[in-house]
Amino acid sequence: MSRDVRWSRIAPQQGVGLELRRGATLTVIDTEGGQVADLFCFDRATLTDGLSSGRSIDYNETIALSSGHALYANSGSVLLSILEDTCGRHDFLVTPCSLQMFQMLSASDAYHPSCLENLARAFEPYGIAADRITTTFNIFMNVPVAPDGKIRVLPPTSKAGDLIRFRAETDVVVGLTACSDELSNGGRCKAIEFEIRS
Amino acid sequence: MSRDVRWSRIAPQQGVGLELRRGATLTVIDTEGGQVADLFCFDRATLTDGLSSGRSIDYNETIALSSGHALYANSGSVLLSILEDTCGRHDFLVTPCSLQMFQMLSASDAYHPSCLENLARAFEPYGIAADRITTTFNIFMNVPVAPDGKIRVLPPTSKAGDLIRFRAETDVVVGLTACSDELSNGGRCKAIEFEIRS
Repeated sequence: MSRDVRWSRIAPQQGVGLELRRGATLTVIDTEGGQVADLFCFDRATLTDGLSSGRSIDYNETIALSSGHALYANSGSVLLSILEDTCGRHDFLVTPCSLQMFQMLSASDAYHPSCLENLARAFEPYGIAADRITTTFNIFMNVPVAPDGKIRVLPPTSKAGDLIRFRAETDVVVGLTACSDELSNGGRCKAIEFEIRS
Repeated sequence: MSRDVRWSRIAPQQGVGLELRRGATLTVIDTEGGQVADLFCFDRATLTDGLSSGRSIDYNETIALSSGHALYANSGSVLLSILEDTCGRHDFLVTPCSLQMFQMLSASDAYHPSCLENLARAFEPYGIAADRITTTFNIFMNVPVAPDGKIRVLPPTSKAGDLIRFRAETDVVVGLTACSDELSNGGRCKAIEFEIRS
């Protein structure tokens, strides 16, 4: 049986919007290593039932999602499952980087590209407002939690070629970025590649 | 200067909707001890800019929010600040208990009251749909994170009379519950009291 395969690249500090039919796989590849990719998604049928970090953490009983875990929508339905994960270190605690965050950190009003802007642009054609984008699944992002609850954002542990493979468990609309935050990416924002098989 | 004070009680497995004007304080009291209260809120001006666990964890740099921390909206604006906290143990990782969750855990389709239902009812008069209710700030909920990322839901550490006091940093609509989940509350669902000073 032939399968439709699409391979593409997200330039540094950019993002894309994707539609996955149920059963399709999405593989996200850190080509150079040390690069975060933020992912958010919605149930295609409603366009309002979005990814839920809280539901996913609750039902998987872990904040460290990897192979065998599922990403849940706010309603509790499964959007994506994780089939394969060669890195094993991702974040599901923090929101995507945003213009506001960069302006706070730099104490200036200078423009800076951000995952939130890129995700908002990816979902805009579907009529999904930016305020529906909540906590993203931050692929390859390295945010350890100390025993006292404090978090730190460290460079990713991902090596060149590390990948994570998802399967769509229902029809979904996905926003995916090559993260724009120099500090989360070891000082330099790099590209992200992805492959869809449907 | 006289202040308007309102003291009230949430019966076990119930919830309320509250409006707080900027500057008002909300004190949530665990009268008996060992009882969780789920809180969610929206900016009154938009009714779409909701509480964000991810933004709050990111900007406070901790998952263990307590006195001196702020609860942020998804947009990044501050909704509530925490003035006082005699317990020091709350959860901001998991979603409110829901009918779906109880039915999954019990492998039955029996009805069970839930924080999600109670919050949805609290926000309904404002035209806020249930799919806007994401990860709640789970007052007195005890969810330790193991070094490997796994979470457990343990009985609250709160003692009789423990309280947490918030100040509204803008006009907000708040949903607050006395949590309906026996397992999160040491086996018995109890009442929650609260006081508003405006």
